[in-house]
Amino acid sequence: MEPIRVAILGFGTVGKGVYAHIKEEQQSLEQTLNRPVQVTAVLVNDESKHRDVANHVLLTTNMDDVLAQQIDIVVEAITGVESAYQYVTAAIEQGCHVVTANKAMYAARGQKLQELAEERRINVKYDASVAGGIPIIDTLNQIHQLESVHRIEAILNGTSNYILTAVAKEGLTFHEALTQATRLGYAEADPSHDIDGFDALNKAYILANLLRKDYQEITVNRRKGLDQLQLDEVLNKQTNQVLKPLVTIDATSESAIEIVVEPTWVEENHPLSSVDGVQNAIVISSDRLGSLKLEGAGAGEKPTAHAIVQDIVKTVKEDNRILV
Amino acid sequence: MEPIRVAILGFGTVGKGVYAHIKEEQQSLEQTLNRPVQVTAVLVNDESKHRDVANHVLLTTNMDDVLAQQIDIVVEAITGVESAYQYVTAAIEQGCHVVTANKAMYAARGQKLQELAEERRINVKYDASVAGGIPIIDTLNQIHQLESVHRIEAILNGTSNYILTAVAKEGLTFHEALTQATRLGYAEADPSHDIDGFDALNKAYILANLLRKDYQEITVNRRKGLDQLQLDEVLNKQTNQVLKPLVTIDATSESAIEIVVEPTWVEENHPLSSVDGVQNAIVISSDRLGSLKLEGAGAGEKPTAHAIVQDIVKTVKEDNRILV
Repeated sequence: MEPIRVAILGFGTVGKGVYAHIKEEQQSLEQTLNRPVQVTAVLVNDESKHRDVANHVLLTTNMDDVLAQQIDIVVEAITGVESAYQYVTAAIEQGCHVVTANKAMYAARGQKLQELAEERRINVKYDASVAGGIPIIDTLNQIHQLESVHRIEAILNGTSNYILTAVAKEGLTFHEALTQATRLGYAEADPSHDIDGFDALNKAYILANLLRKDYQEITVNRRKGLDQLQLDEVLNKQTNQVLKPLVTIDATSESAIEIVVEPTWVEENHPLSSVDGVQNAIVISSDRLGSLKLEGAGAGEKPTAHAIVQDIVKTVKEDNRILV
Repeated sequence: MEPIRVAILGFGTVGKGVYAHIKEEQQSLEQTLNRPVQVTAVLVNDESKHRDVANHVLLTTNMDDVLAQQIDIVVEAITGVESAYQYVTAAIEQGCHVVTANKAMYAARGQKLQELAEERRINVKYDASVAGGIPIIDTLNQIHQLESVHRIEAILNGTSNYILTAVAKEGLTFHEALTQATRLGYAEADPSHDIDGFDALNKAYILANLLRKDYQEITVNRRKGLDQLQLDEVLNKQTNQVLKPLVTIDATSESAIEIVVEPTWVEENHPLSSVDGVQNAIVISSDRLGSLKLEGAGAGEKPTAHAIVQDIVKTVKEDNRILV
């Protein structure tokens, strides 16, 4: 059987995780898909830095070389919007499916990509871009196609949640908690978008867009990060309340889907009050289902790689051309 | 467009819920599937009891009459094993897809049904049989096809959880709590299988079977219901612990998947300690994802109907013959 040929763009934590997952789970992937999955090319910034890739894999800094390899699926695991968008667009135009973990890019250009993808009858999947190992995109899509989702409440930035938990439960200062998060690998080398709320906002935007009807806008009513918290707001602990980096998406207005990103005091019986440390969680409220909560690892090499490989499997199963 | 023709077997809470859901969501279903969905026949025990079905729907006590209606999908929403199994088998043999909410039947005969269904290239879906509105079957299937799930901990019987919560938090006696659960419609008219643990065991069996490898047995190491609790076990409250109707599925042994159903004291930081009232929840532990928790409505007319309609939608999307 011809292998399914995968290219990985970017070889940081997520790219390496996907490479390792595909390598270690060759057998079960082949069993699931009736065809082997092979990483054929890896796009990097600097070839000399990456010796840990097998000889048969093309390691290159040139996207044209990647696309010359008859790739079936491109995994996009880089950061930033512009180059990522150009690479992914080039991949779609050449008929490759795309799986992305890049929330900033997908929040900004997801809709354009989906339109382009639809023209070419290509899949662009993005489950790993929001809440890592939690299968939120498909779950939300499936609920939304059956009934109105009126509200989402979520914790989508693990670093912020880790910091607030450490401040509340271990008595650390904000600065100590951030240093600890960085040392443990939870925060990015540059954690500014974790702290200023833009990381959570990008993810909220992706979820909101999934719920949006054509005539609706998405409005951001407030975006407040941990960096805007006053000390007295953190210390002024209310009885039976905990401070959580909350994302709220309100879909009850006819004209707009409204997003609020803001550290918020929640009651102890609030469904997100017990979500501690780097965990993420999402509560989906709809008419018939009531309230459904998903909680798990929001980031990390292995959970994110799992989400990406899950999207690869779904892509293959949905594409009869690949399966033939 | 020709409608997708659905038959509903059984017209209790669940059957009525599915009928109402399909009726109320005609438009969005047609939009999702590009074809209308029509309830064509309803199988009941006594026709005179059900006047609330539209005139164009065949209301009958005879399964042969149902199958004479060129049904695409049979929704099985009755209780008990034998008749349900015979009806469903007859449906499969005639080339109908099946969606079932019947945990006792599926736990006992699910594997046989899947074998029969595979021969006929028919789908048998059963998400509604475990934890109502929580999309556990697909989620677990998808994780399991990528990596080993080594453990599941869950609360799968809402009535038991309601009773233990009411005893602990409202100070009710066991008997008062059960009466209240029945009055509120949470417990069945005959709640004996909620109380003796067999309802939870059936659901555990369905999940265990999904994880089982061909050479593995499923063994039930313990099945203890609320009815076997001694008063001192309930009152002997440990500090910072809560008593929960726990289901544990251990998949770490090579020879067997091991099930324990038993009210268990769990620590306050246990992921299921905060799951109160009629809520269900499932914690899936696997190598790469770590731990993923799903929590939501485990029963009730609307959540269960949502799960069944979800399975109808998936069935249609997976069957190219129906879609043509």
